[in-house]
Amino acid sequence: MSPDTPTAEMHPQRWGDHASAVELPESALGLVDLAFGLRDRPPVAGATPPPSHLDEALLQELRALVGTEHVLVDDATRTLRTRGKSTPDLLRARAGDLSDAPDAVVRPDGHAEVEAVLAWAGNHRVAVVPFGGGTCVTGGLAARRDGFAGLVSLDLVRMKRLLAVDTVSMTATLQPGLRGPEAEAALAAHGLTLGHYPQSWEHASIGGFAATRSSGQSSAGYGRFDAMVVGLTAATPTGTLDLGSAPASAAGPDLRQLLLGSEGVFGVITSVTVRVRPAPAVTAYEGWRWPSFDAGSEAMRALAQSGLLPTVLRLSDESETAINLADPSSIGGADDPGCLMVTGHEGTSAQVAARRDAVTALLTDLGGVPLGAGPGERWAEGRFHAPYLRDALLDHGVLVETLETATFWSHRERLYAEVRAALTGVLGEGALVLCHVSHVYETGCSLYFTVAVRQDDDPLAQWQAAKAAASDAIIAAGATITHHHAVGTDHVPWFAEEVGEVGVRVLRAVKAELDPAGILNPGVLIP
Amino acid sequence: MSPDTPTAEMHPQRWGDHASAVELPESALGLVDLAFGLRDRPPVAGATPPPSHLDEALLQELRALVGTEHVLVDDATRTLRTRGKSTPDLLRARAGDLSDAPDAVVRPDGHAEVEAVLAWAGNHRVAVVPFGGGTCVTGGLAARRDGFAGLVSLDLVRMKRLLAVDTVSMTATLQPGLRGPEAEAALAAHGLTLGHYPQSWEHASIGGFAATRSSGQSSAGYGRFDAMVVGLTAATPTGTLDLGSAPASAAGPDLRQLLLGSEGVFGVITSVTVRVRPAPAVTAYEGWRWPSFDAGSEAMRALAQSGLLPTVLRLSDESETAINLADPSSIGGADDPGCLMVTGHEGTSAQVAARRDAVTALLTDLGGVPLGAGPGERWAEGRFHAPYLRDALLDHGVLVETLETATFWSHRERLYAEVRAALTGVLGEGALVLCHVSHVYETGCSLYFTVAVRQDDDPLAQWQAAKAAASDAIIAAGATITHHHAVGTDHVPWFAEEVGEVGVRVLRAVKAELDPAGILNPGVLIP
Repeated sequence: MSPDTPTAEMHPQRWGDHASAVELPESALGLVDLAFGLRDRPPVAGATPPPSHLDEALLQELRALVGTEHVLVDDATRTLRTRGKSTPDLLRARAGDLSDAPDAVVRPDGHAEVEAVLAWAGNHRVAVVPFGGGTCVTGGLAARRDGFAGLVSLDLVRMKRLLAVDTVSMTATLQPGLRGPEAEAALAAHGLTLGHYPQSWEHASIGGFAATRSSGQSSAGYGRFDAMVVGLTAATPTGTLDLGSAPASAAGPDLRQLLLGSEGVFGVITSVTVRVRPAPAVTAYEGWRWPSFDAGSEAMRALAQSGLLPTVLRLSDESETAINLADPSSIGGADDPGCLMVTGHEGTSAQVAARRDAVTALLTDLGGVPLGAGPGERWAEGRFHAPYLRDALLDHGVLVETLETATFWSHRERLYAEVRAALTGVLGEGALVLCHVSHVYETGCSLYFTVAVRQDDDPLAQWQAAKAAASDAIIAAGATITHHHAVGTDHVPWFAEEVGEVGVRVLRAVKAELDPAGILNPGVLIP
Repeated sequence: MSPDTPTAEMHPQRWGDHASAVELPESALGLVDLAFGLRDRPPVAGATPPPSHLDEALLQELRALVGTEHVLVDDATRTLRTRGKSTPDLLRARAGDLSDAPDAVVRPDGHAEVEAVLAWAGNHRVAVVPFGGGTCVTGGLAARRDGFAGLVSLDLVRMKRLLAVDTVSMTATLQPGLRGPEAEAALAAHGLTLGHYPQSWEHASIGGFAATRSSGQSSAGYGRFDAMVVGLTAATPTGTLDLGSAPASAAGPDLRQLLLGSEGVFGVITSVTVRVRPAPAVTAYEGWRWPSFDAGSEAMRALAQSGLLPTVLRLSDESETAINLADPSSIGGADDPGCLMVTGHEGTSAQVAARRDAVTALLTDLGGVPLGAGPGERWAEGRFHAPYLRDALLDHGVLVETLETATFWSHRERLYAEVRAALTGVLGEGALVLCHVSHVYETGCSLYFTVAVRQDDDPLAQWQAAKAAASDAIIAAGATITHHHAVGTDHVPWFAEEVGEVGVRVLRAVKAELDPAGILNPGVLIP
């Protein structure tokens, strides 16, 4: 993949590009109307960002560092680098609120240029927001700008190279601006895959995967992104970190793990060395029915604790199953309270056959009913579609958002009940609350909630109240505020509770050491 | 395991307890004589440590915190808490050098008492060396004492409780003072195992495993210790860290990974929550012969990259094989240049059968020759004996020491050759240099070297020169200065090169934040 290949930009008020937009079918519209009341809530058109505040002398310095054509201040470019893609982000964008737009978009190419931009920003106290794919859903692209001379979006779009492939060690070194499909295409040329497919995959970037500890839909087989990383390089405002001299080490704390999940507040990740695998010859997805979410969850636990995980493993609760399994005319109604599990196997045909046989035997023993390939393939076809559907529902006055957490197996049932109760308590019984488990470990699992409700007059405040109640319930249950969406600005207060006062002090100390001027993503992550 | 159960103390000048001491058989003595020249080098007897320098008023405060009987200043106790068990440590102890003895040994029970002792030490600028099992081989128990009012050994011997077991999540919470066998016995009462068996297992502690990122002989199946940890609590001089709300999380950097490998310089780990597994019903160890170290290493890589790892996987190079395979009369001579691999399978009988079949098929395909159970069982019987043999050889004027590293697969051959050359270059062609691979990953492996050579007049300087040359070679090859023995004081200069100037600054910043008086293990880990 050449660094000059243009990347499709997402619509500033929607997910994805316009060509892939999803319209709700007529039949679904009727049901949405029945459930939530159908209204037209089109996005405001023609909004423009506030004028750029950056001093022309500063811009001139910046142009000298990266080239004139890579410092952009036009409204269209700045609009495209305003915030991420959470529902609150979209609600603000749809209302024409571009108040978080950067003053400039700067596109360095390579580690040295990134370092130069950070040094410039430190000298002039300009806030810097690293930008990879722009898919953040936790407010991580809306940094604080008070007290700064300006705010620039540091766009990694030119850093899209596959820097090295080592087919003996099975590693690859990637630049951070590579989007999911670009990275897979570059690796596929060598017969390799990363196997990292979060729902944001079509637009999200390698740097973002690392900086946010992303986890993909194939995490059961390929692991979380942080587990794939064996090395990384980061440019900080005060020097370079180059980490990863072995797959594992006892040489002190694992500093790679301090950069992974650092969300751009310590430095900008300029390359990532990841473990890769052979591109799978065979993929086989299938469906299983379980009598309840509990029964299916226990089966997942059995798989994880037996060391028998498929590549993909996902279980919808009764509510999500009712919507996913049925045709659109059954939306919101669930005649069959069973739960759908999707299993997917990838690898050589021998690997897939052996693993699939073992998984099938265990799931059958535990009472699972095989549904064949149909449900699995339908899931695979639609695996990246949900964010498009959210736009269509927002257009019709339905508030849709997701949140996720993880816990140990023995706390799963309590966490599920308490987060649901918190959401319903704020949003009312008319709210649809769906849940699935899509990431499992020997000791626990994630819970991913999707919420749909009729928008009230202030949908932003409506969601923020529900989100706060759910977040309180998550922390009260001793679970993590986020399993794979990172902290951003939205999770900061709960993150502070999760890591405690001493943990917060550690993060602040690292921040002060690496970024003494505090220019990197102010307000993000660090409480 | 009750906290009152006495723990066998290791001899202050030897590994292990006297009852398990190993004498070299007559036949071996003759060969040692032939190879290195047999001399008597008995340890100096009757040495005493320097008098305790701690002010009586300070001791009184300490007694008030933990109880009079848990503050010990007698020579015998202080001698037992002097340094660890590296060959340099033993050479000093054998020469009667007890200059690193602590001024007092303090035995707090529980997190609150540890915190109180750290606060006391911070107030009075007393250096604190946390002590678990005392098995450190990198100088991690010989802290700097200049500029301090004294130095105390913080002995975790009273903190030996299994605090919690969760058989749904398959986790257990352990206190740090539990030694390997004590932890396994406590878990076995619940049908569980940790599966962590480093060579130091008989004496090393849970806290030490965590603080040094230990890796055991069953790491292929059970993983490194750091991979088992899902949560931990640490007392720092400025507050408590309580981490681990889920198996995995995207809530910022993984701060657990900052405490793992921190070697007591940030805080004292007061409990660890680990992933546990069912105690295996079946264990099966066996041997394989490979035509060369390269061929065997490539087979290990194939296993790791196929996801087909046994529980134990170990490969000796030609030199180590010649000594291990044969009877003692062949020591130093290798008629058969083949290499011994040991594979071990643990689990249910079905798991063992399935995994063993798959491993056997792959190894046979790759040209491995199965040797049956004999070599595997002999390895298992002797798996904890090597340190005892070192004492016997030191008694006879032979210098024996080990060092280890890890790298990516594509650098294995170069690293092996360059470390061997560095050792032989310093110690001469008469030195015996053995190597094995005992920890493998998809992307790389460890290399563990054992060296035996005739002691010269200053064996400490002799080893330090060889170690420095080997360490230089390791860093020059881009490998890690330690895969599982930690940094201690011995590795500090090379560790600084490995993590770079910015990495060192990060560690110092965390240190300054958590331990502003710098009382915890001064001189250890942090360059």
